[in-house]
Amino acid sequence: MSTSEDDIGTTVLRRTPEYKPPRSLRTWLIGRPLPTADAPHQTIGKAVGLAVFASDALSSTAYATQEILVILAAAGTLAFGYAFPIAIAIVILMAIVTLSYEQTIHAYPGGGGAYIVARDNLGELPAQAAGAALLTDYILTVAVSISSGVAQLASAFPAVSNYRVILAVILVIFIMLMNLRGVRESGSLFAVPTYFFVAMMFLTVSAGFIRYLGGDLGSVVDPPHLELPAVLSVITPFLLLHAFSSGTAALTGIEAISNGITAFKEPRSRNAGITLIWMAFILGAFFLGITFLAGHIHAIPSEEETVISQLARTVYESRGLLYLATMAATTVILIMAANTAFADFPRLSALLAADGFLPRQLAFRGSRLVYSRGIAFLAVLASVLVILFQAKVTLLIPLYAIGVFLSFTLSQFGMARRWRKIGQLQPGEEVKERGSTLRYEPGWQAKMAVNSFGSISTFIVMLVFAVTKFQDGAYVVLILMPILVVIFSGIHNHYRDLAAHLSLDRYGTAPRSTRHRVILPISGVHRGSLAALHYARSLSDDVTAVHVSLDSEEAERLRQKWEIWGEGVRMVILDSPYRLLIEPLLIYVEEIARQRQPNETISIVVPQFVPRRWYHSLLHTQTAFMLRLALMFRRGIVITDVPYHLEPNGKEKNLS
Amino acid sequence: MSTSEDDIGTTVLRRTPEYKPPRSLRTWLIGRPLPTADAPHQTIGKAVGLAVFASDALSSTAYATQEILVILAAAGTLAFGYAFPIAIAIVILMAIVTLSYEQTIHAYPGGGGAYIVARDNLGELPAQAAGAALLTDYILTVAVSISSGVAQLASAFPAVSNYRVILAVILVIFIMLMNLRGVRESGSLFAVPTYFFVAMMFLTVSAGFIRYLGGDLGSVVDPPHLELPAVLSVITPFLLLHAFSSGTAALTGIEAISNGITAFKEPRSRNAGITLIWMAFILGAFFLGITFLAGHIHAIPSEEETVISQLARTVYESRGLLYLATMAATTVILIMAANTAFADFPRLSALLAADGFLPRQLAFRGSRLVYSRGIAFLAVLASVLVILFQAKVTLLIPLYAIGVFLSFTLSQFGMARRWRKIGQLQPGEEVKERGSTLRYEPGWQAKMAVNSFGSISTFIVMLVFAVTKFQDGAYVVLILMPILVVIFSGIHNHYRDLAAHLSLDRYGTAPRSTRHRVILPISGVHRGSLAALHYARSLSDDVTAVHVSLDSEEAERLRQKWEIWGEGVRMVILDSPYRLLIEPLLIYVEEIARQRQPNETISIVVPQFVPRRWYHSLLHTQTAFMLRLALMFRRGIVITDVPYHLEPNGKEKNLS
Repeated sequence: MSTSEDDIGTTVLRRTPEYKPPRSLRTWLIGRPLPTADAPHQTIGKAVGLAVFASDALSSTAYATQEILVILAAAGTLAFGYAFPIAIAIVILMAIVTLSYEQTIHAYPGGGGAYIVARDNLGELPAQAAGAALLTDYILTVAVSISSGVAQLASAFPAVSNYRVILAVILVIFIMLMNLRGVRESGSLFAVPTYFFVAMMFLTVSAGFIRYLGGDLGSVVDPPHLELPAVLSVITPFLLLHAFSSGTAALTGIEAISNGITAFKEPRSRNAGITLIWMAFILGAFFLGITFLAGHIHAIPSEEETVISQLARTVYESRGLLYLATMAATTVILIMAANTAFADFPRLSALLAADGFLPRQLAFRGSRLVYSRGIAFLAVLASVLVILFQAKVTLLIPLYAIGVFLSFTLSQFGMARRWRKIGQLQPGEEVKERGSTLRYEPGWQAKMAVNSFGSISTFIVMLVFAVTKFQDGAYVVLILMPILVVIFSGIHNHYRDLAAHLSLDRYGTAPRSTRHRVILPISGVHRGSLAALHYARSLSDDVTAVHVSLDSEEAERLRQKWEIWGEGVRMVILDSPYRLLIEPLLIYVEEIARQRQPNETISIVVPQFVPRRWYHSLLHTQTAFMLRLALMFRRGIVITDVPYHLEPNGKEKNLS
Repeated sequence: MSTSEDDIGTTVLRRTPEYKPPRSLRTWLIGRPLPTADAPHQTIGKAVGLAVFASDALSSTAYATQEILVILAAAGTLAFGYAFPIAIAIVILMAIVTLSYEQTIHAYPGGGGAYIVARDNLGELPAQAAGAALLTDYILTVAVSISSGVAQLASAFPAVSNYRVILAVILVIFIMLMNLRGVRESGSLFAVPTYFFVAMMFLTVSAGFIRYLGGDLGSVVDPPHLELPAVLSVITPFLLLHAFSSGTAALTGIEAISNGITAFKEPRSRNAGITLIWMAFILGAFFLGITFLAGHIHAIPSEEETVISQLARTVYESRGLLYLATMAATTVILIMAANTAFADFPRLSALLAADGFLPRQLAFRGSRLVYSRGIAFLAVLASVLVILFQAKVTLLIPLYAIGVFLSFTLSQFGMARRWRKIGQLQPGEEVKERGSTLRYEPGWQAKMAVNSFGSISTFIVMLVFAVTKFQDGAYVVLILMPILVVIFSGIHNHYRDLAAHLSLDRYGTAPRSTRHRVILPISGVHRGSLAALHYARSLSDDVTAVHVSLDSEEAERLRQKWEIWGEGVRMVILDSPYRLLIEPLLIYVEEIARQRQPNETISIVVPQFVPRRWYHSLLHTQTAFMLRLALMFRRGIVITDVPYHLEPNGKEKNLS
């Protein structure tokens, strides 16, 4: 006992119990528990920051081009010529979004995810919408990235093809375990695969362009079979917009840096901002390069072989070492992208939980100082998606990106509102909000214009996406999102009500209870029930023993025994014609409760036999347990278990 | 309140609560609950008795011949000539067993199953062995009969072949539901299919013999393919004994009548005995007839088409109406046989449970007055077997029959011992045992000889079976049976110990407790925890509030609130560096319990928040529940839940 204080007559003791976490399968899988004091506080520079936050965004180059081609294929291979112009449009959109987020990073040095920006500037409902959009998108990031990673692997090693789904699920579980273990976001671990991917992709795209300029870049040798529709459709604006929507998957992950600004070294906003520009530049270059070259080599979108695989083996003219290195780098960056979602989802759900929109448990850190529940939840949902969609990227894409664009729109619209608030301040004036501090800034009008334009652009893209991909599956997300928002509100109301009910405002002193009635259900007269009888009598003089009788003869024997051992306590025998044990008792208790006086307390004292080994409980009807479950929802009835243990040495020991 | 008695100052009230069982999916599936008073008491005559009890035995003619041929096939088709001599040997064995059981029926007019006979005459261990043997055999009866029934169906309609396993499982579930519903063993329901089978089989075998005698019974047209081994084995005595073992499956079910004597009209032993003779006669005639004819028409044992199907279509020269009727009758009698096991298994397990060898719950009758748990248990185990063995009769047979023969041996050996006991009585002397009454009988020596001879014969057959079928799977049963006996003994010891511990012999008056310590774990200071505090203070003046702290600041706020609201009660704050809630509390309680004085009671009062809707509990950590689970196995600690409900109208109402 470390300290002891005596204020107004109340003794408060404080102590730390000696507790050694035991070893178990769990500690073997995810490591020994870490004390709270071990929480890490490290910051990273720009180069490492790029490695940590860019994997999600960069990895989308692995599938974005292919998804454009899949849609264009409806109008035949000639339509593939439109892929490059579409890619240019997407890169322009990317530039707009990047500029807009650049401003967010400087405005929210404490972290400016869409949820926080929307909460501070747009109110509760838009914040919940942003939260719902982001959470669904993180789940889809895991499903899409892992599925694409497995597809890359299957392109290099076709033997893997038959085991795609199971392999994808194993990868999800593996990433889950690594995250439950709480891998520190240490730079080295992330830098190697990210820069390996950047290097390999740079090499592949450069080599491709050199050979293209040299004029000796041919077509894909032995390309996968392209399944064209029986009747080719005409190239319509709708088709092109549809292909554009699919390609916008390239933008997913671009918001990652704005969530993680606090991880950067000071001056963190500046460092984070520069990293964002780098990332957008690399992303845009790769996406354009891949799309251009894919068109030139006549790559075919296929579930059997990815476009990246076709590009790499055409550029390197073989399935040699460089090809394999490119495929390995692509696979690994995709797995890293899934890992990013495993960092973001639990963090955002903890934030939502702390604000009372999700169950509080999600805000508690587990034994390894990570939000274990959120991590496990994400793994389960992503696995379900992977299994439902058979690990096929093309089937998952229509669900994806719509959430991303909703969060882009809300976040930038929130920023625009913030600039307007800033414009109304006097120079030198400061207003503290929950997520940031508002200060007057000259030129706020231009900045508001940038964010507004970004917001409108992404909003339009979102509408295009929703319309063109509605039938393919986007409708699922459009239905799901409002449902999630309703659930969030429901949870919020519950917590608010609870707090109001438990509040001690306007709470006088509690009325003393004047009468205490005790009901003692017994199945027989034996040492266990007599122990409970003694306890019951120590609580009150008003004790009633109750026995539910299935058999008249047995009830008569019980009555006779009770007259000897019952200490004069009143007994009620309830006949049960349907051989039920719980229900007659419940009806009886209900009746007593109805007749209750004000200030009367009713306690039910249940003799509970505790077997020596847990499996012995299979040999007993769990009446006490069932009774507790049934009575729990009855109002104002206290339930007491008086345990009765069997001693190994044959002497029974009980309370008293 | 119907009666009220006042003896030695103890009031005993007796009443029947008004209870209407509600409608649910369950009542739709198995019917509305029946009151105990509805238990049926009807008796049946010989003709109906044959229908009720013979289906199991008669149905074995559907597969016994085929199983003999399967084994003989190892030595090529020439060996099939030995099938008939083997069948004759089996019928002789059948005659011996029938004579022996005839005596049992007269000795045990109250029902003389192997378990009861072994229990009364051989002691506990042989009784448990008989019980284990019978229970495993009932499970196999279901699996074998249903599998064979599905095989008959697949012979008539080859399209069914691919769905054998699923069809078999559906049939098991259907029979389970019918039995849970508690179909009365009403004669009419059983008489129709049994006599339909007897009629059709009589017609088929007679027609076969008439055509055979007329010389125009040919071979099977287009028989199924026979897979012969690459190297034919020689015909050895071992092979013949092996085939004999397989054929003994024909004897299964012959003991059914001895279990059900009480169902017969008076004079019940005589009626039951005559029924047994009839049944044995019909069974023997069919088995010999089928085996003889199968040999003549060169029937081939096959999983694709059963021997019965080959026989019927050869005799009737087509797959016409008579053929289909024969197959339908065979399928239905096999399903009826499975149904018999569904009547016997729960009855025997209830008997074993009442004697304390199986969990007591098996002796309780469910809402429809049947032993529901036993019925469900049997269905699960039989389904597992059907799935594991892919509904193939030939794979199941090696597990079968060995248990039957063990129970035959024990039952007859028990009878022999009983005759010896009777021989030692004086004329006119009577000794009452649990299952029957012993009276001197002249000629007991001859009767003892009959049972001894039966016992020795079946014992030898069991050994032959175990040796010849050891490798095929009999070893599983030989391992399983001792394990079951050990489990039975373990359960028995547990119940015996428990009874001894709970006994009130040598139990004086309970010592009064001198001190009552109350521990009150709280997570915060609010109306819920204050309600629990008031209850705790009404139990004792020695109350300690305990708070587990994950966060120092929060603990400090709690401490301040407690000084205002804590009514001067001592508070202990436990720091939890690993963010665990339960463990620090357990260690604290453990320490208090260790320091406990004799006659000191420790109660833990847990404020339990009860949400308005059950799914709201997903929004709360179930600390109170986890605490209860963890504390349950601690000795001598009383746990009290003080519920705290949220009122819909915003007013909270609590005990007091």
